[in-house]
Amino acid sequence: MPPPSDALAARLAAARNGTGPAGLDGLLVTNPVNLRYLTGVAASAGMAVVTADRVVVVADQRYLRQFEDAARDLPAVSVSAVPVGQSYEGAVAALVATLGLRHLGIEADHLTVARLAALRRDPALAACELGETSGFIERFRAIKDRWELGRLREAGGRLAEVAACILPEVSEGRTEREVSWKVELALHSAGFERPAFETIVASGPNGARPHHRASDRRIAAGELVVVDFGGVLDGYAVDMTRTVAVGRVPAAERSWLGAVAEAQQAAIDAAAPGVLPSAIDGAARAALARHGLADAFVHGTGHGLGLDVHERPMIGPRGDHDGPIAAGMVFTVEPGVYVAGRGGVRIEDDVVVTTSGVERLTGAPPDAEAHEL
Amino acid sequence: MPPPSDALAARLAAARNGTGPAGLDGLLVTNPVNLRYLTGVAASAGMAVVTADRVVVVADQRYLRQFEDAARDLPAVSVSAVPVGQSYEGAVAALVATLGLRHLGIEADHLTVARLAALRRDPALAACELGETSGFIERFRAIKDRWELGRLREAGGRLAEVAACILPEVSEGRTEREVSWKVELALHSAGFERPAFETIVASGPNGARPHHRASDRRIAAGELVVVDFGGVLDGYAVDMTRTVAVGRVPAAERSWLGAVAEAQQAAIDAAAPGVLPSAIDGAARAALARHGLADAFVHGTGHGLGLDVHERPMIGPRGDHDGPIAAGMVFTVEPGVYVAGRGGVRIEDDVVVTTSGVERLTGAPPDAEAHEL
Repeated sequence: MPPPSDALAARLAAARNGTGPAGLDGLLVTNPVNLRYLTGVAASAGMAVVTADRVVVVADQRYLRQFEDAARDLPAVSVSAVPVGQSYEGAVAALVATLGLRHLGIEADHLTVARLAALRRDPALAACELGETSGFIERFRAIKDRWELGRLREAGGRLAEVAACILPEVSEGRTEREVSWKVELALHSAGFERPAFETIVASGPNGARPHHRASDRRIAAGELVVVDFGGVLDGYAVDMTRTVAVGRVPAAERSWLGAVAEAQQAAIDAAAPGVLPSAIDGAARAALARHGLADAFVHGTGHGLGLDVHERPMIGPRGDHDGPIAAGMVFTVEPGVYVAGRGGVRIEDDVVVTTSGVERLTGAPPDAEAHEL
Repeated sequence: MPPPSDALAARLAAARNGTGPAGLDGLLVTNPVNLRYLTGVAASAGMAVVTADRVVVVADQRYLRQFEDAARDLPAVSVSAVPVGQSYEGAVAALVATLGLRHLGIEADHLTVARLAALRRDPALAACELGETSGFIERFRAIKDRWELGRLREAGGRLAEVAACILPEVSEGRTEREVSWKVELALHSAGFERPAFETIVASGPNGARPHHRASDRRIAAGELVVVDFGGVLDGYAVDMTRTVAVGRVPAAERSWLGAVAEAQQAAIDAAAPGVLPSAIDGAARAALARHGLADAFVHGTGHGLGLDVHERPMIGPRGDHDGPIAAGMVFTVEPGVYVAGRGGVRIEDDVVVTTSGVERLTGAPPDAEAHEL
């Protein structure tokens, strides 16, 4: 299901209208995810020049027809082919010269040093100043439109069903890899296009590694198992983690489950429009500190979700550079505890912040009983 | 299966020894795939500073233990943590200052403009000149070592089995998406970690789009169906395309199959150590031109395979900047024909160039009969 034309038209208009106030007469979009956001076309290559009154997509032959088909329904969008044997940089430089642009913004968080150097070397761009921008399109993307919220709600609900279906399969004797494959089958059955990332199944001591990969290790009784999985629906990623206690887990490890659940709820309670991301992160951190687990929480509290599985807003101690949380932002809340040699716990849900409160997209929080399957 | 320590040690030594001749006293590795190549650790974040006598990996808490475990078996490799609340750039700048480096190379094809700006702003780097490098580690990666060739041979053989298993499933009435899911199940059964990319199933007119995504379109009799799929084994990607003629395909379209097979064989015949990539590409293009199909071949002839599914060498009209083909290079050979409104054909196999000839990794070429299933 592609985004409706009116949603795309609104995004395109916002981008076009943003160029002037940013002191630019054009923005060069090189991040393929931003290009998908603006056009609805998912391609691994392609660029666009956005000016106040038009958007010109530059594409090579592999994707040209997809962009041309999309442009037919979009206001003020046209498509220009990269001539065979020419580079994207050459095609963009020629286009910018034709359009007569003098102040072109580039996406500094995405464009590589080499591509910028190629643009700077092109004589067609001699009269054009290239300025670094950061998060120009990403800041629009951080606030989801109605259609996006619909897709994310649908995806979150389906992911909660996947969790209900696969967590009982996390049991003694299974390997981590067997569990991860069951997750991927369940994601497919639920209608996801693909997993949002490589499923993490981290049993026993492996749980101490936040980004462990599923291995051939067999799950044993008395272990905690961290299962972190996500799916992509219509391009939008959702992401969820549950920690399962298999058999009789030692009391100390079991106590981590309650502490992390408490930290998650504290962070969710702290979230609202106008609140800084660091305050949400701080709420989770303070809750874990009350359990003497402050040092065991070694990553940030969450990340935005959308066309990227990690996008703005970043919910962490250093996440405030984009300003406060706004209604329409969707992000994960995923505190954790990691203890080398012993294991770990992470609980992750996805939320949307609205003017009337915070809504969980991935269902109810796990209750303490549900952990012990 | 991780690479053996002696293979990693040889790669690390090659990188260390390469810094001096490049006029650098250090190289900052920021491409996670290059970092995996050097350490065996697959992580979405992490950097390394490579000097003539040591390699220091800089990692955050999510991946720190994986890198520390790996470093134990590797000569002259140490690991430095990014302090919580600090940036990678800050940690790297402090490290470079401690090491007293004055000429640090950066990976211009990977480092973003924003990250380079952050490094340049850091006062700890005031005495260090940052120079752009291109393909420093990637050129080593292009020539596979013995262990890598073993994995790629194994992966190619398994991919050929996947093809044999799934191509008979490409039949009238099935949707493109159903076929792509069968491919992904077969990849899993064959022991691949994951698909190397989103499987392409392009039926009828969709075949005219080289990078079509599998849709809900149902395959009809009389159509060509392009199926392009790949798998990752121990981190190494292999990639294969077959075009299936379903039922009685019009003679003109059927003739494309033979022309493309001929172009593929011509390109393979042209490949040898010392040959320029453009000559291999030119051989495929000349064969298609003999059939009046020169303009229908809208992309390059192939791309290198390894830890990335697209890496050096690029086999195309503009692929010569890295010099000639060398023994140990592994790449795809995948000419195609694309005709808007009608459809397309692509045939793709993976080859390794050796001193004694070119070896197909993905089995025998398709014979003309086999296309008509």
